[in-house]
Amino acid sequence: MDASPGRDDSDDPRPSTQDATGLAPGSLAGIRVIDLTRVISGPFASQMLGDHGAEVIKIETPGEGDVVRRQGNMVNGFSAYFAQFNRNKRSITLNLREPEGRQILNRLLEDADVLVENFRPGVLAKMGLDDDTLRQRFPRLVVGRINGFGSTGPYRDRPAYDFVAQAMSGFMGVNGVEGGEPMRAAPPISDMVASLNLAFGVSAALVRRERTGQGEILETALTNGLVVMLGYLAAEYFATGEVPRRTGNDHPMLYPYGLFEASDGEVAIAPSSETMVRRLLEALGRVDLLEQPRFADNAQRMAHREALREILNEVTRRRSVDDWIEHLNTAGVPCGRVQDLRETFDDPQIIDQRMRLTLDQGEAGQIATTGFPVKMREAPAMIQRPAPQLGEHTDEVLAELGFGADECRALRQRGIV
Amino acid sequence: MDASPGRDDSDDPRPSTQDATGLAPGSLAGIRVIDLTRVISGPFASQMLGDHGAEVIKIETPGEGDVVRRQGNMVNGFSAYFAQFNRNKRSITLNLREPEGRQILNRLLEDADVLVENFRPGVLAKMGLDDDTLRQRFPRLVVGRINGFGSTGPYRDRPAYDFVAQAMSGFMGVNGVEGGEPMRAAPPISDMVASLNLAFGVSAALVRRERTGQGEILETALTNGLVVMLGYLAAEYFATGEVPRRTGNDHPMLYPYGLFEASDGEVAIAPSSETMVRRLLEALGRVDLLEQPRFADNAQRMAHREALREILNEVTRRRSVDDWIEHLNTAGVPCGRVQDLRETFDDPQIIDQRMRLTLDQGEAGQIATTGFPVKMREAPAMIQRPAPQLGEHTDEVLAELGFGADECRALRQRGIV
Repeated sequence: MDASPGRDDSDDPRPSTQDATGLAPGSLAGIRVIDLTRVISGPFASQMLGDHGAEVIKIETPGEGDVVRRQGNMVNGFSAYFAQFNRNKRSITLNLREPEGRQILNRLLEDADVLVENFRPGVLAKMGLDDDTLRQRFPRLVVGRINGFGSTGPYRDRPAYDFVAQAMSGFMGVNGVEGGEPMRAAPPISDMVASLNLAFGVSAALVRRERTGQGEILETALTNGLVVMLGYLAAEYFATGEVPRRTGNDHPMLYPYGLFEASDGEVAIAPSSETMVRRLLEALGRVDLLEQPRFADNAQRMAHREALREILNEVTRRRSVDDWIEHLNTAGVPCGRVQDLRETFDDPQIIDQRMRLTLDQGEAGQIATTGFPVKMREAPAMIQRPAPQLGEHTDEVLAELGFGADECRALRQRGIV
Repeated sequence: MDASPGRDDSDDPRPSTQDATGLAPGSLAGIRVIDLTRVISGPFASQMLGDHGAEVIKIETPGEGDVVRRQGNMVNGFSAYFAQFNRNKRSITLNLREPEGRQILNRLLEDADVLVENFRPGVLAKMGLDDDTLRQRFPRLVVGRINGFGSTGPYRDRPAYDFVAQAMSGFMGVNGVEGGEPMRAAPPISDMVASLNLAFGVSAALVRRERTGQGEILETALTNGLVVMLGYLAAEYFATGEVPRRTGNDHPMLYPYGLFEASDGEVAIAPSSETMVRRLLEALGRVDLLEQPRFADNAQRMAHREALREILNEVTRRRSVDDWIEHLNTAGVPCGRVQDLRETFDDPQIIDQRMRLTLDQGEAGQIATTGFPVKMREAPAMIQRPAPQLGEHTDEVLAELGFGADECRALRQRGIV
């Protein structure tokens, strides 16, 4: 049926993390999340909560839904991009421009533990849910939000987008090669980092809520999250006042380090200490280089980097990538293959770690998504349900709120759901 | 010395998040973390827990300590790199190679809520703390670990390093320019992402611990975390079987998007929808371009990208970066300056968001670090104490365990602490 390349973990004899037998429900079981987010940063965050057992109700605009439903490649009419970030959620439609729609949202919040949103600052307030109202009306609710630049400050109302956050945070300025242009990272890392920060912030606030009964309102911004990811470089900037330059694959402070040429490709080699440099040179049969004053310590090697690079490549070119990876790992030197995504998902270690999981998307068939980055022993992340069709669970959730079938039909006719 | 609250760099008149007056203790107040991590991924994770109120006790080898203490630029003898990732912790020395040292670790764990470690798989087991023992002896403890590749699978014992994780995860393969070499991201993103995953996982497990009394053992790996960060590209690969290529600053699916030339530099412009493309072209005075068949929709614009790039740069070159940022943001088009770290930390928005915080490091003076990415309204992150000197709190923590001054002295003489 559909194109699902690469191998799955399905012939792995161990019990799958998707099989709950004998395991506890996820860590966040019993936590109900009302999810107003769309596109990527918010949905990835709420999916992480859902992966770990939270019950997530995604609220979408009737007839439209999350714009991502119409983006990227379609697998039998279902967006693979949407599936990637919306498993483990139910979907209901709700027109929040209508008072009746907002009333239903309020009823949902009464039974909820968490509300997540990634509107521009102020949009939720215009729906009658400003921060003070949220805290008063729902004192046990944890509200988590993602925005571009923060909800205060001169840029609070600017439209946000990952590429802009990468530019403004300083990330692009250090990424790329010397003499080249500032370079974005290929994936939308400011979105993804914001998701991780939100998932952490919401969970930390829930710990406090469990202990004190108090809810919380918290936020994270695309720019702020990326600034913190630059902490290693920021620390050097703060200490020296010198702005870090782009150094491509070379480490700004260590050598040897980087890509080296094998007979059939490149090997990433990263010895992080003097001990490991010695191990590397021993494994290459060139420990004699350390006797030369120009290579005797890291400072000397940095000063004579190009000369040493040439000498080392002469050695590494004699054998294959596979050979070097085997040989250097045995010697205790961190190294690895530079993989494309096919090689990554076919890598036996990545398969062992089940980093590719397949969703059964009903009529759309099977759609593969990435696996779980956090592995728990007793209450592991699981696939409880695939990504939902738009409004697939509207009637079900309305019934849970006490609406009868006739009321649901009437709401639908009036365009409320 | 002790808890010297850090100072904020801004003249902002609002109460600082570092000033606790009227605010609740952090979300993780009352949670005690025993921290065996070193270098970067683990320490950044435990620092996030500490920023949000957890009590973190960092355990270091007597006389040596975390290797990062001797790395990077020194500010009056104190490593800026160490300060960046170790605020809000106490430090004790403990020789875990000695049975007496391990006994003290066990006593610490009796009163702890969390243990974090980033040893290679199996090292903790060799200290007598294998997973089954940990679960039996400390049933309420949440154990969180970071490793390179996961604790199962063919590469479980390989040495790990950020550069290698970037190579093997597929990240380097998509990062960089077409025709150029695979490119690492400048910051150690696999470490940083693992930290965020660990902070999330530990907090989620604590939510369950609060509700069920059950502890947990969880882990995250450098490679697995980065694979998930590639989810947007992985979804396309899974759906099509086509391996994504490096596309530099160009979006693989949208145009116009990217860096454009202003009279005095470059502007990052990222319209993410047809509506925004129209707004951009209106703001540039060239909405007429949409009438041309070759630019009429996104597919056409992708096919004629270079022609459109040239036309747009002709317009953008007429005005300055500042002008365009003002003008385009007013028009609702996501855009921003490509900043180096100095410009980022001098940016009024980044200052508003307090993304630079200064630690009072006692004799070492003031050392700046990055701020908090998660902002909480009622129980905000705070600087409770600067980064510790090696073993600064050994006697204090031993006293809390009931050791007298004489016993501490004897332990120190025997090299246990």
